[in-house]
Amino acid sequence: MSAPTTPADLVILGGGSGGYAAALRGAELGLSVVLIERDKVGGTCLHRGCIPTKALLHSGEIADMAREGEQFGVKTSLAGIDMDGVNAYKDGVISKLYKGLQGLIKSRKITYVEGEGRLVSPTAVQVNGETYEGRHVLLATGSYARSLPGIDVDGTKVITSDHALGLDRVPTSAIILGGGVIGCEFASAWKSFGVDVTIVEGLKHLVPLEDESSSKLLERAFRRRKIGFELGNRVSTVQTTADGVKVTLENGKELEAELVLVAVGRGPVSQGLGYEEAGVAMDRGYVLVDEYCQTNVPTISAVGDLIPTLQLAHVGFGEGILVAERLAGLPVVPIDYAGVPRVTYSDPEVASVGLTEAQAKEKYGEVEVLTYDLGGNGRSQILKTAGAVKLVRAADGPVIGVHMVGSRVGELIAEAQLIYNWEALPDEVAQLIHPHPTQSEALGEAHLALAGKPLHAHS
Amino acid sequence: MSAPTTPADLVILGGGSGGYAAALRGAELGLSVVLIERDKVGGTCLHRGCIPTKALLHSGEIADMAREGEQFGVKTSLAGIDMDGVNAYKDGVISKLYKGLQGLIKSRKITYVEGEGRLVSPTAVQVNGETYEGRHVLLATGSYARSLPGIDVDGTKVITSDHALGLDRVPTSAIILGGGVIGCEFASAWKSFGVDVTIVEGLKHLVPLEDESSSKLLERAFRRRKIGFELGNRVSTVQTTADGVKVTLENGKELEAELVLVAVGRGPVSQGLGYEEAGVAMDRGYVLVDEYCQTNVPTISAVGDLIPTLQLAHVGFGEGILVAERLAGLPVVPIDYAGVPRVTYSDPEVASVGLTEAQAKEKYGEVEVLTYDLGGNGRSQILKTAGAVKLVRAADGPVIGVHMVGSRVGELIAEAQLIYNWEALPDEVAQLIHPHPTQSEALGEAHLALAGKPLHAHS
Repeated sequence: MSAPTTPADLVILGGGSGGYAAALRGAELGLSVVLIERDKVGGTCLHRGCIPTKALLHSGEIADMAREGEQFGVKTSLAGIDMDGVNAYKDGVISKLYKGLQGLIKSRKITYVEGEGRLVSPTAVQVNGETYEGRHVLLATGSYARSLPGIDVDGTKVITSDHALGLDRVPTSAIILGGGVIGCEFASAWKSFGVDVTIVEGLKHLVPLEDESSSKLLERAFRRRKIGFELGNRVSTVQTTADGVKVTLENGKELEAELVLVAVGRGPVSQGLGYEEAGVAMDRGYVLVDEYCQTNVPTISAVGDLIPTLQLAHVGFGEGILVAERLAGLPVVPIDYAGVPRVTYSDPEVASVGLTEAQAKEKYGEVEVLTYDLGGNGRSQILKTAGAVKLVRAADGPVIGVHMVGSRVGELIAEAQLIYNWEALPDEVAQLIHPHPTQSEALGEAHLALAGKPLHAHS
Repeated sequence: MSAPTTPADLVILGGGSGGYAAALRGAELGLSVVLIERDKVGGTCLHRGCIPTKALLHSGEIADMAREGEQFGVKTSLAGIDMDGVNAYKDGVISKLYKGLQGLIKSRKITYVEGEGRLVSPTAVQVNGETYEGRHVLLATGSYARSLPGIDVDGTKVITSDHALGLDRVPTSAIILGGGVIGCEFASAWKSFGVDVTIVEGLKHLVPLEDESSSKLLERAFRRRKIGFELGNRVSTVQTTADGVKVTLENGKELEAELVLVAVGRGPVSQGLGYEEAGVAMDRGYVLVDEYCQTNVPTISAVGDLIPTLQLAHVGFGEGILVAERLAGLPVVPIDYAGVPRVTYSDPEVASVGLTEAQAKEKYGEVEVLTYDLGGNGRSQILKTAGAVKLVRAADGPVIGVHMVGSRVGELIAEAQLIYNWEALPDEVAQLIHPHPTQSEALGEAHLALAGKPLHAHS
């Protein structure tokens, strides 16, 4: 395809969540859009992130249910995991969603270019020897799986999530460096697959960005599942051995396993792409933007994992839409990042929106906190899951933080998102009776209790 | 226990969802409360309804997952259902929740009386030979599983849900009379257990109170699961045979099975309890009330399945709380019954809040409708579930109906409940980005599309 001679309204470098959302919304609003992607539209989320990991976790859920069927009166058995089958299932899901996305891109008449793009001026991207001019350029080149200095990722014994998603076997044992979302999700899925897993986390808790109470509940659940973890311990060295890997911690402790997964976070993909040369302000590889995702160069915006906001696909969606609407001249409001729901899809799941108790205290001084234990929730008892719903509010004000732990609670945070973003008072939620028996009732009961009228809870 | 000599503030006849909610809330507000129950506190919902059926359905989910594990790369197998095990699991859940409820009743200093109560005056209930006087009496005697004229429920071959929950074996085949919530839930659980199931429904659709599109999606899913159904067909006769039951339909068709489950609805428990004698106005066994659950007798209120409102446990909770707050002198607002979420916990689940498309057209004339297919929802693809989210609104107004079909969507209706009850415009939901990849995104995408800015949907 040769580049058009007139500039497009918007040239987008990177077809992941942020880039394609901007393309879809921009085209919908009548902008002419060029979308450039070096690999496959859908990016990390669809091909190497959210979607494939959730498929592994669901296979894991099925394995666990088969393991525990007798507890529910079901004569199940589990003969093992067929990784080829898991991968076929996972790839089938990806492929279907990928086709759907390609169809959307096509139907909205977006010019799609496959190839390695490079910013060559504040208004142009070069790809496959062609130059695409745009009135505006959106940088959305995403992120890559980071490693630690001194750790040699060889792709076989020492791997990142990219490799982990392509594994053709179930390892006997694994050490996971990093107890954040990615580390905990792999730990959960692998444990369900029968892997002997140990997590190493330098901070004091698993999922350290969550409310401390959520971290503790997850740790309790992982302990019960016999997922090992070393907290507040940093890695000193990682050495491959004849039949695996040896990890030495800074406190001298040694761990051995068949492989090591490095899950220490994701860094921005921004080197050698011409960003600095075009004058884009950056910090440690991240492209800096204002609250409208605008860089210091007037014709350049940036979204997604490339900028130092929450690295979540739906944040990318939100930022991409915001940029498209802004360029189309619609009124836009900055994203309240605290109001973006976060979910760790381990078993149990961890979900939250708004401020943690600690953040709320820092911001408001005194806060009120209410914890409703899932032990009182019928549906959670049926699922045999443990956990809690925790609410945070400033004195007599609206709910400013919701934190949940338990199987399947990731689906419940959507309601909590409305509560937070619409600044609901506990009583406004409490007056609505949730359907019985659902897990969502736990959120209702927590609000009843916070409003001073607990139903299925002690006063 | 002997009755106190001074009247209580509130004497409650019946300790099911409506009765115990009134007791708990009343006691919390400082009322002296007597709660009278002939069987066990918790009533139908906890002991013979919501909770045990959901336990069966979860055992069914586990069985189905074991059956289908290979599709997910998990080498599962299913050797059958151990009904003793299922019953032990179900009874364990009930027992735990029952203990919790008993603890709550005790901690709130409610006078609990076990025995058959009878209204003996507008301000008194007699039980176990004692008379309990109250400034106010709340009738909450609930409902029983109805049969049809000419059908002899023998408890072995022709049974109701009460018997079905105590079955000690998995029948080979079953005919279910009634395609409402209860019939569809048993059909779903039993099919998962390997039973050959046929539903007979006199109306044109399964779950006939739901939006017609939901009924059709459920029928499609049941057809795929090989659950049989005869729609628009009434039962003519039910005859027991040597090894089972023969059902003849009005159109002459004959069906045979090991047993017949009569699931044609629940009738009010109100006969011989002194209601008429005390002057309480009734209609076909239901106690009539105004929108504050007040009967025509000033000292008597009634709630729950006994009154002709939606027969749902959470409606009972809401009504019980309303009565307690009214008696304690708090300001109360009538319940908007359309805003109460409804869930059928079959696989797939059916959930709704607000008006069906037909009801909305009747009320508003022209309406706008938007259907988002779960085929575009990543998490639903991971779960391999089919279904949809359908929104209904009157011209440019708020969302007045939400209808969902799909695995696990019962948990999503809680968010929809806020949208309906807070009269949200599509755009107010659309501006919030749901967590990816969840099923709740489907609700978000539907609102994005209805607001005119579809993301993962064709315009």
